[in-house]
Amino acid sequence: MISSMKVLSRALPLSTRGRPVSDYVRKIRTLDHWAQSDSSLSLEFQVGRFALMVDRRPLVALNNDKRLMNLRILEYAEMKRKLADYGLSVDMASSALLDAVENSTGDYTAVFGSSLRTAEMPDDSPISIDKLRSQLAATLGGSFVDLRRAMLTLESDRDRSLLAKMHSLTRWSRIYRRCPKCASALRMRASKTAAACMSCDRVYYPTYAPVAICVVSNRENTHALLIRHQGTVNTVYTAIAGFANMGESLEETVRREVAEEVGIECDSVEQLNMSQSWPIPQGSLMCAFRAVADSRQKIEMCADELDAARWFSREDVALAYENTIRDPQLIFAPRSDEVQQELKYIPPQGAIAHRIIKHWLDEKSS
Amino acid sequence: MISSMKVLSRALPLSTRGRPVSDYVRKIRTLDHWAQSDSSLSLEFQVGRFALMVDRRPLVALNNDKRLMNLRILEYAEMKRKLADYGLSVDMASSALLDAVENSTGDYTAVFGSSLRTAEMPDDSPISIDKLRSQLAATLGGSFVDLRRAMLTLESDRDRSLLAKMHSLTRWSRIYRRCPKCASALRMRASKTAAACMSCDRVYYPTYAPVAICVVSNRENTHALLIRHQGTVNTVYTAIAGFANMGESLEETVRREVAEEVGIECDSVEQLNMSQSWPIPQGSLMCAFRAVADSRQKIEMCADELDAARWFSREDVALAYENTIRDPQLIFAPRSDEVQQELKYIPPQGAIAHRIIKHWLDEKSS
Repeated sequence: MISSMKVLSRALPLSTRGRPVSDYVRKIRTLDHWAQSDSSLSLEFQVGRFALMVDRRPLVALNNDKRLMNLRILEYAEMKRKLADYGLSVDMASSALLDAVENSTGDYTAVFGSSLRTAEMPDDSPISIDKLRSQLAATLGGSFVDLRRAMLTLESDRDRSLLAKMHSLTRWSRIYRRCPKCASALRMRASKTAAACMSCDRVYYPTYAPVAICVVSNRENTHALLIRHQGTVNTVYTAIAGFANMGESLEETVRREVAEEVGIECDSVEQLNMSQSWPIPQGSLMCAFRAVADSRQKIEMCADELDAARWFSREDVALAYENTIRDPQLIFAPRSDEVQQELKYIPPQGAIAHRIIKHWLDEKSS
Repeated sequence: MISSMKVLSRALPLSTRGRPVSDYVRKIRTLDHWAQSDSSLSLEFQVGRFALMVDRRPLVALNNDKRLMNLRILEYAEMKRKLADYGLSVDMASSALLDAVENSTGDYTAVFGSSLRTAEMPDDSPISIDKLRSQLAATLGGSFVDLRRAMLTLESDRDRSLLAKMHSLTRWSRIYRRCPKCASALRMRASKTAAACMSCDRVYYPTYAPVAICVVSNRENTHALLIRHQGTVNTVYTAIAGFANMGESLEETVRREVAEEVGIECDSVEQLNMSQSWPIPQGSLMCAFRAVADSRQKIEMCADELDAARWFSREDVALAYENTIRDPQLIFAPRSDEVQQELKYIPPQGAIAHRIIKHWLDEKSS
């Protein structure tokens, strides 16, 4: 384990002599070096590549059939020039280290994520902030879209992971300015991977909160228990999820969350081989589970969190899955209050909930 | 998912009418209510039961054959009286909510964990602090032992989970006194499950860091790659582990940590159905994995972290496992520098590393 307390002072462990390690190992060790050495990373900034968020909205380009999207990645010089036309600029303080990509010389180029904010427009401005952002996006060859929408409909998992990292790290670095223990200033690492107190020397790391998410089926495995959160589209149901409490195993998290949210006791909790980073409401690590419950138990829903919790048949879930595949942006999801008990959609493919529901659909009934 | 931002204001979701929920659900909802209502929890304090740490050392009692131990759980009144004889006292500020146990009236009694510190003894005191703690422990019917030793040799997983929770939450609550964003005072919840800024209203939760821990085998599945950390006993080898970085899936954490620590590229990363809370260096959620690597790759060890990294045969690992079962406190583990390349022990049964190494031993070679 990389000792969490030693990391700031750790030197680059890469031996450059002897048999070369694999490209993957070389990349990982390069990233580790950059993450810890502010001076090395600063040399990469002006030759780096950039993902961009403006006002929490990532810059994306729609793919060919316009159903899914990709993160738009920019070169430093071009991005700088175009942002300057709009009075914006990127610097290391607003950027986090995201990745490394091999370049034509066989070396690595750093990928940064920069999160900028536009200034408020004066009331008598002839142009709206939305219009301004649209113009900027067009100049940069893309669009700024809602963060959640991007997470749900980015085409590749790599882009999703970069976006989760970009939003979570830049958000964390804006919050962690003072030592929670002694209130002295924190010195933030350029990569945004740690912050050290300038007075008491404590080191803080980005808070990555583990979450368990679970499809609960009945014993016969013919039905799944799905829920709808308050404030979500009326006919879109998803799996039960919740943050791990300190001291719990993830299996205990599943059992507790199911009890808290729907008043049901479940068992046979089984971890699936899937996890995913998610940036909303803040950096979370979603870990996928399956469980079983006796469906004769009465559902006692936590009414402060949920609008609905119901058992749905495999056939109903399969139809909702098909609808979601055809219409991943949920544009045609029925929204009226009359249909709110009906299941018509599940979350789009970018959500781990989609994958574990699909996983359940692929299981056989017992 | 319990929305992390709403939790402080959430009312008790428990419906007391209708068909009663199961005992487990009732317990979970009672705990949830206490976790969020300081006034309700304060009513439980003087009728609660208590686990105790003094100077970071938990109070335990050895079991009958003296090889394993149990947390000593105390009644409030007796504990208060005995602590007072030593000039110590417990209060809500030094205590965290750990659990609920059903009592004789069919209701629930809260279990707290209190973490106290003894004062420094004056230089000319006729009694040492160790002696004083021993006397106090004897009065309380147990011993104060090293935190890691207790985690490794507590008999039950429930005790281990309570101890991890007690140490992690009381430690966190001592650190989070000021808002990292605005430096105003934080109002800590009595349960120690959240702290809210009194000025900017941000809410902070105990930081529970996900860690991946992995046994890497060769393709033939005849050998496992085990490591020895700096500062640990010379002949005790363990599995590779490390904190998840923001944006990673746990599978990516495994691949990165193995590359960083030993310079090896692994694949076939598979999550095992095991996770465990661990309080050192701070609240961590250990998630178990298996992976495979080509053993012809050269090991390039991260010398700042590790003293050794080697492939060991199934037979050697089995012998080390047997030694550890016979001597779970590693009392007879060889410690001299001459034997430091030899594998004689693995971590004791309380560590998830022990369980995943045992899991590997139970697999068949391919």
